[in-house]
Amino acid sequence: MSVPGTMVLLRHGQSTANVEGRFTGWADVPLTAHGERQAAAAAELLARDGLVPDVVRTSVLRRSIRTADILLQELDRSWIPVHRTWRLNERQYGALTGRRKREVRREVGPARYQAWRRSLTAAPGPLPGDQLARLRADPRYAALRGGGLPAVESLADMIARVAPYWVDVLAGQLCSGRRVLVVAHGNALRALIAVLDRLAGQEAEDLNIPTGAPLRYDFDRELRPVVRGGGYLDPDSARVAAAAVAAEGQA
Amino acid sequence: MSVPGTMVLLRHGQSTANVEGRFTGWADVPLTAHGERQAAAAAELLARDGLVPDVVRTSVLRRSIRTADILLQELDRSWIPVHRTWRLNERQYGALTGRRKREVRREVGPARYQAWRRSLTAAPGPLPGDQLARLRADPRYAALRGGGLPAVESLADMIARVAPYWVDVLAGQLCSGRRVLVVAHGNALRALIAVLDRLAGQEAEDLNIPTGAPLRYDFDRELRPVVRGGGYLDPDSARVAAAAVAAEGQA
Repeated sequence: MSVPGTMVLLRHGQSTANVEGRFTGWADVPLTAHGERQAAAAAELLARDGLVPDVVRTSVLRRSIRTADILLQELDRSWIPVHRTWRLNERQYGALTGRRKREVRREVGPARYQAWRRSLTAAPGPLPGDQLARLRADPRYAALRGGGLPAVESLADMIARVAPYWVDVLAGQLCSGRRVLVVAHGNALRALIAVLDRLAGQEAEDLNIPTGAPLRYDFDRELRPVVRGGGYLDPDSARVAAAAVAAEGQA
Repeated sequence: MSVPGTMVLLRHGQSTANVEGRFTGWADVPLTAHGERQAAAAAELLARDGLVPDVVRTSVLRRSIRTADILLQELDRSWIPVHRTWRLNERQYGALTGRRKREVRREVGPARYQAWRRSLTAAPGPLPGDQLARLRADPRYAALRGGGLPAVESLADMIARVAPYWVDVLAGQLCSGRRVLVVAHGNALRALIAVLDRLAGQEAEDLNIPTGAPLRYDFDRELRPVVRGGGYLDPDSARVAAAAVAAEGQA
């Protein structure tokens, strides 16, 4: 095998739900103007570091799609292959979908709140039936109609759905030397990183992914990350922003 | 075989070169604000007629890419598969690239001008060497580096490059019942229609495709067009706009 390609992970730019401090999950909210600027700024970082992508992978949610579109326009790469998959969707947050993080934290206390947000296996209640029915009727999830559409997911469930995408799609592209850009969501990227870096429970819990901050992974010939945790292209900003994600919902 | 899907052909919205009356070819010019509005209006027509696409095919030029992006955003279908190919690019206009139609017509006379624009086999001179070198270095045309990148194309050359895309890609998707939207260019769509409708010389010459006007094709079980020439979703506007295309370059 030749030298594997590089993968850049990017959480979408700030969404309207981010700015309101809400759990978003599969709710299909747009970017804010700030989120659009983050996408353009991410493009600049990729160009600076010679990481203009050959292929892009996104979720089927508009905040990742739009982030990728803006970024590719900035790079004059709108013509490259883009593939979209529900496997890169944000975590299905079930009953928390659309709720304000601060209110949920106040309601259930910091321990449960933290477990719901961060632990490997905890999950809140399922999505209400009418909202689930709406998702089941959505043509973008037609392939999940045979009972595959989750009503709620833990991080472990996320890992189970992201791992096949790593094996079946991303790993193959990297093996053939492609530069792959993955534009997805906080928990989808946590799950992917848990797979890549074989994260144990506490490590997965402590991982926070800021919006709009490109994170670079290089691989050895066995497709293991050269540096565990990868490297943010703008590490100082990313550190500050990740700390803010960790503190979300605290007054 | 079940009933074949429907195909909608759409020439990109007005570009900056269209508004300046220039031959564009493979020059990668953006849409005007009017062109963006045309893309949104095309989305409305598709929704009205139950033609929201399952898959989209575009060229690798930004005027078709952006037209498709706007249209899909309007339809809340940004998540569907989009495939881009140089086979749907505009005709390589060679030495005419970037030149004003009116000036060319004045220079070479109406007969030659008409032949260059419309006949099956006439072609102007090749693209200047420096411009050709730039295209050869463009990563989006990497697959054409083995001598496949045309310095100029006639409509017959266009047909030769579009026909395989019809057979290998579009026909298969229609056979499996998909609603396919093709967003491309005036001459790429003329070539595709020449294949679909088995156009003779004069018919191909008389065909003019206006910007932003969705053209619907339905097919029988042998994948022959049910109605030769298809049907514009807004036939009155399309007729007026096609006549304007036919008259381009005349004072």
